[in-house]
Amino acid sequence: MKNKDFNMTCPIPISDYPQILLAHGGGGKLMHQLIEKMFVATFSLPGKDEMHDAAVFTVENKKLAFTTDSYVIHPIFFPGGDIGSLAVHGTVNDLAMAGAKPRYLSVGFILEEGLRMEDLWRVVQSMKEAADHAKVRIITGDTKVVDRGKGDGIFINTSGVGVIDHEMVIAPQSVEKGDVIILNGDLARHGMAIMAVREGLSFESSIESDSAPLNEAVDALIKENVEIHCLRDLTRGGLASALNEIALSSKIEIDIDESMIPVREDVSSACEILGLDPLYVANEGRFVAFIKEKDQERALKILNEHSMGQEARIIGKVNDGASGRVIIKSMIGAKRIVDMLSGEQLPRIC
Amino acid sequence: MKNKDFNMTCPIPISDYPQILLAHGGGGKLMHQLIEKMFVATFSLPGKDEMHDAAVFTVENKKLAFTTDSYVIHPIFFPGGDIGSLAVHGTVNDLAMAGAKPRYLSVGFILEEGLRMEDLWRVVQSMKEAADHAKVRIITGDTKVVDRGKGDGIFINTSGVGVIDHEMVIAPQSVEKGDVIILNGDLARHGMAIMAVREGLSFESSIESDSAPLNEAVDALIKENVEIHCLRDLTRGGLASALNEIALSSKIEIDIDESMIPVREDVSSACEILGLDPLYVANEGRFVAFIKEKDQERALKILNEHSMGQEARIIGKVNDGASGRVIIKSMIGAKRIVDMLSGEQLPRIC
Repeated sequence: MKNKDFNMTCPIPISDYPQILLAHGGGGKLMHQLIEKMFVATFSLPGKDEMHDAAVFTVENKKLAFTTDSYVIHPIFFPGGDIGSLAVHGTVNDLAMAGAKPRYLSVGFILEEGLRMEDLWRVVQSMKEAADHAKVRIITGDTKVVDRGKGDGIFINTSGVGVIDHEMVIAPQSVEKGDVIILNGDLARHGMAIMAVREGLSFESSIESDSAPLNEAVDALIKENVEIHCLRDLTRGGLASALNEIALSSKIEIDIDESMIPVREDVSSACEILGLDPLYVANEGRFVAFIKEKDQERALKILNEHSMGQEARIIGKVNDGASGRVIIKSMIGAKRIVDMLSGEQLPRIC
Repeated sequence: MKNKDFNMTCPIPISDYPQILLAHGGGGKLMHQLIEKMFVATFSLPGKDEMHDAAVFTVENKKLAFTTDSYVIHPIFFPGGDIGSLAVHGTVNDLAMAGAKPRYLSVGFILEEGLRMEDLWRVVQSMKEAADHAKVRIITGDTKVVDRGKGDGIFINTSGVGVIDHEMVIAPQSVEKGDVIILNGDLARHGMAIMAVREGLSFESSIESDSAPLNEAVDALIKENVEIHCLRDLTRGGLASALNEIALSSKIEIDIDESMIPVREDVSSACEILGLDPLYVANEGRFVAFIKEKDQERALKILNEHSMGQEARIIGKVNDGASGRVIIKSMIGAKRIVDMLSGEQLPRIC
């Protein structure tokens, strides 16, 4: 099929970006520009103002959520997980962040000729275990093989369907002034676990990825009728990017308190060695919840009783501004703006 | 997460296949072995006896179909289409083959650093056009970028959700003795279009892929209450593999008549030059329908009136046997068994 529209001007200025850069997948400004201007605009996806981790549609008055993610993480095995468990957790979490109960997953493998059969088997078993743990079923799949040198061992796509069993609209547009922001645990472990392996760094203790399913913790909040306005997992681009995305799309202003954000000491040292800011490092078992102020105590208690929220705490608040900015009060009390990541920090972290 | 089960024996004998081969993705015996023994068994997917192109699940008594496919075709642009339109048609067709009306698609891009922005834009526009034409909406997406040399320009995963609006069980287990088999058009154009470009062959006329959405043609049959027992599109492995899969899983025997199977003359010549059998070559706009005998005339008429079935004809029948075999009567009247493809014929054809 040919079409006159093929001559439409490319929405990304080709003179500026004639080619795809690693940063177009890094979770920062370039990636957002590509997604907004090319994909969202062309496919009429939900726009920036209502973008979240999964799309919602209705069948027979029942709301369902649908999401997709490809996993290209390198290396495929790392402390605390592997590409298989990550591919299950990531997609389960995207559904959970839309307030949906994850039900069904699809899996699409792109294998490189020469991949060790044993490695594939290990990944497949890990996916099965992660799916059982998160109580989702893998019900359909596809396998492709590409020639040696045209892939990188194994890439996995998982897409997921979940069911929304409540009346809340959990999305950036529901965020209100006065909402409190809860973070469910310490930051930056996933990213630093990967970097430590890649860079051959050895620390006193090995840093394990925080990769884990978040759906049960979210379910616990929903079951107790906590008024949740928005949920977001802190993957590519980390806490800083997630908060910036929400602040921008909801046209609000966010205050956060650095002293409330837990980072393990070994993780913090690793970040320092590599010159990385833990606020921007990817996590795979961490999320923020924007909660109606009146429910903050109850929400904290529920999360603290759950294995995925023992360290959960309030890290900030939506203030009265409308600047779309995120402002952090540092340990020593100074305030600064936390911007969206502009380049690309950690390639192939998920 | 570590687990004792990680020590379970690999279901593919590692001494036989220590590594993934291109043939593990080629649509033949090795691919079926990998899918059956490793993926179906581990994930408890619907087994061979009921395997088809999409999984079916129920929400509020409404049957939905869910499917996934990754597209790694090389080259990404070819006569008659590109990886973008193919990624829409392929997944739309998988849903249609389950008797579902395709509604929503997800798209996951894996881009290689250095991909030309113009090429990406062309692919994205082509996806949009194909989705509009097939009346499906792309509602969620993901973008990953891998470093140069670790991908091949662009890989696309599309997953799809469709709605099943009738009471038929369109699947291999519904096939009955006496069913007629209708093919909707000429064979082998997609595969030969790709091979011609790859091998730098030029024929008198250029061979264009048959890539197209099949959902409207299927809908037309369903709307007229044609009793459909099974549908299968003829992608990797072609007609021969599709019929073998169905014959095996339904424990039936199939007779087909070579003189009824249309292959264009230029396609046939190209196959001869490259030593390929058109029965095994991939198509992207062709399917077989197993129809209750009483409905054969009506079904043919409906298809012949549709743009995707002008050349549709009855090519064979389910006979009284139970051998799981496909038997072809050649042009000169001799009968032979058409086996499943054992090696891999055309890598990266979809």
